Amino acid sequence: MRIGGVHYRTVWLADDGWSVEVIDQTRLPHELVVARLSTLEAVAEAIVAMRVRGAPLIGAAAAYGLCLGLREDASDGGLERAAAALAATRPTAVNLAWALAEMRGALEPLEPRQRVAAAYARAAALCDDEAETCRRIGEHGEPLLRRLAAGKGGATVNVLTHCNAGWLATVDWGTALAPVYLAHDRGLPVHVWVDETRPRNQGAALTAFELGAHGVPHTLVVDNAGGHLMQRGLVDLCLVGTDRTTGTGDVANKIGTYLKALAAHDTGVPFWVAAPSSSVDWGLRDGLAEIPIEERAPEEVTRVRGRAADGTVLEVEVAAPGTVASNFAFDVTPARLVTGLVTERGLCEASAAGLAGLFPERGRPGDPP
Amino acid sequence: MRIGGVHYRTVWLADDGWSVEVIDQTRLPHELVVARLSTLEAVAEAIVAMRVRGAPLIGAAAAYGLCLGLREDASDGGLERAAAALAATRPTAVNLAWALAEMRGALEPLEPRQRVAAAYARAAALCDDEAETCRRIGEHGEPLLRRLAAGKGGATVNVLTHCNAGWLATVDWGTALAPVYLAHDRGLPVHVWVDETRPRNQGAALTAFELGAHGVPHTLVVDNAGGHLMQRGLVDLCLVGTDRTTGTGDVANKIGTYLKALAAHDTGVPFWVAAPSSSVDWGLRDGLAEIPIEERAPEEVTRVRGRAADGTVLEVEVAAPGTVASNFAFDVTPARLVTGLVTERGLCEASAAGLAGLFPERGRPGDPP
Repeated sequence: MRIGGVHYRTVWLADDGWSVEVIDQTRLPHELVVARLSTLEAVAEAIVAMRVRGAPLIGAAAAYGLCLGLREDASDGGLERAAAALAATRPTAVNLAWALAEMRGALEPLEPRQRVAAAYARAAALCDDEAETCRRIGEHGEPLLRRLAAGKGGATVNVLTHCNAGWLATVDWGTALAPVYLAHDRGLPVHVWVDETRPRNQGAALTAFELGAHGVPHTLVVDNAGGHLMQRGLVDLCLVGTDRTTGTGDVANKIGTYLKALAAHDTGVPFWVAAPSSSVDWGLRDGLAEIPIEERAPEEVTRVRGRAADGTVLEVEVAAPGTVASNFAFDVTPARLVTGLVTERGLCEASAAGLAGLFPERGRPGDPP
Repeated sequence: MRIGGVHYRTVWLADDGWSVEVIDQTRLPHELVVARLSTLEAVAEAIVAMRVRGAPLIGAAAAYGLCLGLREDASDGGLERAAAALAATRPTAVNLAWALAEMRGALEPLEPRQRVAAAYARAAALCDDEAETCRRIGEHGEPLLRRLAAGKGGATVNVLTHCNAGWLATVDWGTALAPVYLAHDRGLPVHVWVDETRPRNQGAALTAFELGAHGVPHTLVVDNAGGHLMQRGLVDLCLVGTDRTTGTGDVANKIGTYLKALAAHDTGVPFWVAAPSSSVDWGLRDGLAEIPIEERAPEEVTRVRGRAADGTVLEVEVAAPGTVASNFAFDVTPARLVTGLVTERGLCEASAAGLAGLFPERGRPGDPP
């Protein structure tokens, strides 16, 4: 998508043809900084430190991390160690495991000397596939907005989103925001309520930034506000991403998503989840019992990063010294609260039957593999 | 309650016998600053700027503001103008209107020359009454915690609270936290999950501060976390305050309360509201339709105040420059989501019948006054 009229992706090969460049998302919205990653360790650090984040982008970055690891050691052991190091960076998003499995499946049968070139080709293809998947999610989701606009006589459609499931979370287009960008680019009046998404403020720092850079009208609100907005009829549609969806339609996403799904259910607002099939963990049946929830450092809760009046970007403590904090990064929204899923193959119910209808080759969850 | 072993109230008469002193809550948790207020205008500014906040404390402070106004003009017109200026400071909490009506009712029949002394006496009595009301709420609510502890074989009771309904929101004791303080002081093991409560972070700045100062174990979480905590069985009881409760039990409280009530309802966690009768607006029947919701400055959303590493307390911008934000300060939780109310006369159902049972002298809402 665009920043200042220039088209960007979130990850690309550097001019040297082998290093990887990414937008350092910890510096947004205050600075647009491109970070060059030249080792497996640098990619792993970028994922852990959330310089790159968002389930689809984590998978794409990990694929390039594997390329960099193989440049140093392309043996079977090197491939295995690189994949293990990358897999250990973040626990909740399934795209990471999925991308690494794709890469390993393509590379393991090859001779070690063939692996580096093949890995770069496969990583590039994976990025193109991710971008195309997101574009298709946009195409399938855009009619949801169009129908809502028609139902309002062409008035602006108000979408509420949580965290960042825009193009910064993917290679391009985004998942939840792909339908929004497509609708906006096609002239449909759309406005986005952006949850700030504490503790890391991805809504304020990333979603508001990318919507603004692309010219989509939006309003920032605190995470507490969504229920009130829905009670007052100010939200036509909730549209969020997912870090891992079970084969039965339970959705793990950024902490707080469950609260918005409850409010949507209580007020009759449709609640849709943009879920590329790479984020579906087909064998899982019970999201609450089976999806591991990452716990991050308490300092993310007790400190907030921002820009002071003099332009300095710094962290400030918001709690009294010594305050103990807890920091669960995701929660699970049960399928019963999800109106439906937007996948690259179309819309479906958030259920085993719904997913199996669009992805029959995956079999039904619980079936023997 | 205690700070560093010293007993404090939130508002008291200064040594000069007529100025009013308050803890400036905009400076917490980083500094404990006492502000001296010597004019009606200073009290009004302190309420608008939220140096004093919390529905019961706003009422108490306004009572003293009226005293200061009468010192300058004790005529009928002066009384009316002072009450009007104070009533206009904040729109949602009903205690403000209630306290001003109490004061006017006592002062209007008097000669102007009698009013100043009578006003100070009435304001002091109102503060003592508020503190006693809160202590009684503690006595009536404490058995809720004791029963939960007994049901867990004496294990720690985990209470989730939103915003600050502790002693800093009242004259002393607090509303939602009064049962917690009493249980803690009596040796019951209790732990509080403290919602940080964006945008003004009253949870991080005030609730965590006052619980820590009094020695009550607590953990700070982002507002997004409560649903997850309840899903995982980590919350035994939600206990919040209220800025205005209808005669039918609908509860206006800090924005985000509705989301926690939804999660409690969905997960079977009891959701209690500590509601002194001074916060009940007896004539209202429909909280969503009838309670005005204050909208505050968008900068409260785009900026966060905290302490930098060098000790400076400052505001930082968390969003990109020019980001539009919206800032509704309260939401309404329908009575159907409230397990019950803790009042100074005991526990009751959040309904017209429940309230009428405890406060028969108020009549039923909808009855002719």
